[in-house]
Amino acid sequence: MSDTRVKFVLGEQDIPTHWVNLMTDLPGEAPPPLHPATKQPAGPDDLTPLFPLGLIQQEVSTEPQIEIPEQVREIYKLWRPTPLYRARRFERELDTPAHIYYKYEGGSPPGSHKPNTAVAQAYENAAAGINKLTTETGAGQWGSALAFACRLFGLECEVWMVGSSYDQKPYRRSMMEVWGATVHRSPSEVTDAGRSQRVHTTGSLGIAISEAVEVAARSAEVNYSLGSVLNHVLLHQTVIGQEALAQLAIAGEEPEIVIGCVGGGSNFAGLAFPFLRRVIREGAKTRFVAAEPAACPTLTRGVYAYDFGDTVGLTPLMPMYTLGHTFVPPPVHAGGLRYHGDAPLLCGLVKAGLVQPRAYRQNETFEAAVRFARAEGVIPAPEPAHAIRAVIDEAAAAREAGDSRVILFGLCGHGHFDLSAYDAYLSGSLEDPEFSEDDLGKALASLPDAPALA
Amino acid sequence: MSDTRVKFVLGEQDIPTHWVNLMTDLPGEAPPPLHPATKQPAGPDDLTPLFPLGLIQQEVSTEPQIEIPEQVREIYKLWRPTPLYRARRFERELDTPAHIYYKYEGGSPPGSHKPNTAVAQAYENAAAGINKLTTETGAGQWGSALAFACRLFGLECEVWMVGSSYDQKPYRRSMMEVWGATVHRSPSEVTDAGRSQRVHTTGSLGIAISEAVEVAARSAEVNYSLGSVLNHVLLHQTVIGQEALAQLAIAGEEPEIVIGCVGGGSNFAGLAFPFLRRVIREGAKTRFVAAEPAACPTLTRGVYAYDFGDTVGLTPLMPMYTLGHTFVPPPVHAGGLRYHGDAPLLCGLVKAGLVQPRAYRQNETFEAAVRFARAEGVIPAPEPAHAIRAVIDEAAAAREAGDSRVILFGLCGHGHFDLSAYDAYLSGSLEDPEFSEDDLGKALASLPDAPALA
Repeated sequence: MSDTRVKFVLGEQDIPTHWVNLMTDLPGEAPPPLHPATKQPAGPDDLTPLFPLGLIQQEVSTEPQIEIPEQVREIYKLWRPTPLYRARRFERELDTPAHIYYKYEGGSPPGSHKPNTAVAQAYENAAAGINKLTTETGAGQWGSALAFACRLFGLECEVWMVGSSYDQKPYRRSMMEVWGATVHRSPSEVTDAGRSQRVHTTGSLGIAISEAVEVAARSAEVNYSLGSVLNHVLLHQTVIGQEALAQLAIAGEEPEIVIGCVGGGSNFAGLAFPFLRRVIREGAKTRFVAAEPAACPTLTRGVYAYDFGDTVGLTPLMPMYTLGHTFVPPPVHAGGLRYHGDAPLLCGLVKAGLVQPRAYRQNETFEAAVRFARAEGVIPAPEPAHAIRAVIDEAAAAREAGDSRVILFGLCGHGHFDLSAYDAYLSGSLEDPEFSEDDLGKALASLPDAPALA
Repeated sequence: MSDTRVKFVLGEQDIPTHWVNLMTDLPGEAPPPLHPATKQPAGPDDLTPLFPLGLIQQEVSTEPQIEIPEQVREIYKLWRPTPLYRARRFERELDTPAHIYYKYEGGSPPGSHKPNTAVAQAYENAAAGINKLTTETGAGQWGSALAFACRLFGLECEVWMVGSSYDQKPYRRSMMEVWGATVHRSPSEVTDAGRSQRVHTTGSLGIAISEAVEVAARSAEVNYSLGSVLNHVLLHQTVIGQEALAQLAIAGEEPEIVIGCVGGGSNFAGLAFPFLRRVIREGAKTRFVAAEPAACPTLTRGVYAYDFGDTVGLTPLMPMYTLGHTFVPPPVHAGGLRYHGDAPLLCGLVKAGLVQPRAYRQNETFEAAVRFARAEGVIPAPEPAHAIRAVIDEAAAAREAGDSRVILFGLCGHGHFDLSAYDAYLSGSLEDPEFSEDDLGKALASLPDAPALA
């Protein structure tokens, strides 16, 4: 009797008890972040004005796994474990012998994987006696996840939303407000940084970060929160991959390829790191594909160098692939992927050849997303549409090779707030922006003076 | 050790194999629908121009249960079984000893319970050789569910969307188009009905129904599809209550009250009918509360009489509580509850005293929804916010009585496309419309000449 299951569900008791810390698995010594002024290795003390000790310890931990606090697991129960689907209808649509699985994180209240870390961060800050978190948000996925998490722990939440997104996506702002957050259009009049940048009326992620950091730095009871890039953020997302491992075991399958989209790297890391540990420690044969936008091709066109994490240069210098911190990506709809750098931990894996990056154009990702939606039902966010595009390539390769390779990809969020982009695609008016080679050259030329990376 | 579970999940094998047909459980003979011209009982033959035989047989079936076709169950697997949650955080918010459970249908791709019947209807039409379905939609929940279902069975789908909603909710239209449907702004220029009503530029559900029916009646290969009211639609929704029964058994709980919102009645029926069968057949003590808008108080202020199902008077006369088919409810955001009548099957249960109706004002329902969202995370659609408002009453009664009654309610959809209404509520600008007593009087005076109901 053939197995016709399409959905592999776990019970609450199967929510992972620990996060996977891949730091300890990496070959060689990881280059440390550097203090932006002294260019000396930045230590935990440099982080205390913005982050609670619990998160700093996770950031620098050398333990192979870190226990998930019981209160965090309690809240994870609201949407975890998330389902793993066998995309049988999409396989037929693609006419492929490949077995395609996707791990769907869009069922969380904010609609993406972001609350996996937002809840963990809100918990540690609340436990440290902090009463407010500040953050920036672009398209709004991260801001709404943090608003949701802060509400659950009784923390205030203040969000600076990039001006152009604030105007274009009023419903993401409303969502944050339903959960009780205060949302500012950035640049705002409530910070020095905002007032100094008021000529840039549409705002930028860099300005919004400066505003959120400024307010957090003003008070010992206020901290700042970041939704990707840092080690502890990637760590928190590893619940995704651990569940997927257990679910694929139920399905009796071994993945040949794991695919995720990459903006700052937390979604990709969350799915891939538990599988990467098996590759590094046990010699498993899985391949890993990181899908990014051709309009912001950090891993495929960037250089591996020390650079600032933000546009205006407030953060420590991080060792990563970067397009240059002054690079401004064209306005593709996958707002979550418009970042000039990537998580140092992920960049190290790309550098080591363990993760293969691929870049896709905006229109081909929407074409992939519509094919997927028409087969499977779920309308993907523009970010995971990049992963779906990569899946189509692998499914075609499987057909040509005549093998039934197992493909796992991360469907990290739904597209309910991105339908104007679908509308543009369906009406043939979606732009397919290329970045300016000239701008890229200038941004790379403005990299800070710092030690070269091997 | 106390049970801290918040989510009760089932596996694919637990998707019900049959639908519950409550027709056979009702006390006494149900009054038949009447042909609108002859006023004689309308038979199956009167339905064949619009519906396939498979659905007509379900509409008039006297079998206590009807097997769910395997292909329908296969598609149900994309989002079913749906989770049952214990609302522990909401209980604490309400400071109540009551145990509150909710069955969440918002995880389906269109975001509500509607695909439970859309898929069953698309299946029967495809099996009958039909190649296109037409329908109307107001706020867009039903239209998007049918667009989704048609895509899965390779049927074309043509939707007439009420003009004012078409203008206000472009993203629901985009969602239907992502799934391949054609969406017209109603009144449209492609039907006689639309052209004749073009002065009513904002449209109405009545006009949209006329347009969809006109196009379906033109061709033997095109049928019409309705998203509520009819017996077979309520039947298809009973997967909800059957799963909830199994899940409450896992939780070791017996519900004292079952609560659902009511527009046409299919969401309420889907949750309640399997529990009602236990009351009618086995003497279980469950109470049932049907929550409706005070702006469209069909069950609480309507009369029990034969009336048309649509505004312009094309449908058979149905025995139901009605505000009069010419009654135009004020524009509350719970668009799915703005219907002058209700399902005859549900109305019979209200008439028999088995279901207790309650009406709530718009602002108090949004207040309830925001409290719920801040406790549980999920942002409810405005329709189930009415059920949540009723839950708050029952939770307060439990506190006063000092008992830990078990309350089950249906959270039939998310509010991702309703955030402008939340925005208005949070900014204090949400209207709290009352209907005009004068208009109600006129609408009731225009009831068709038909036999009185007991």
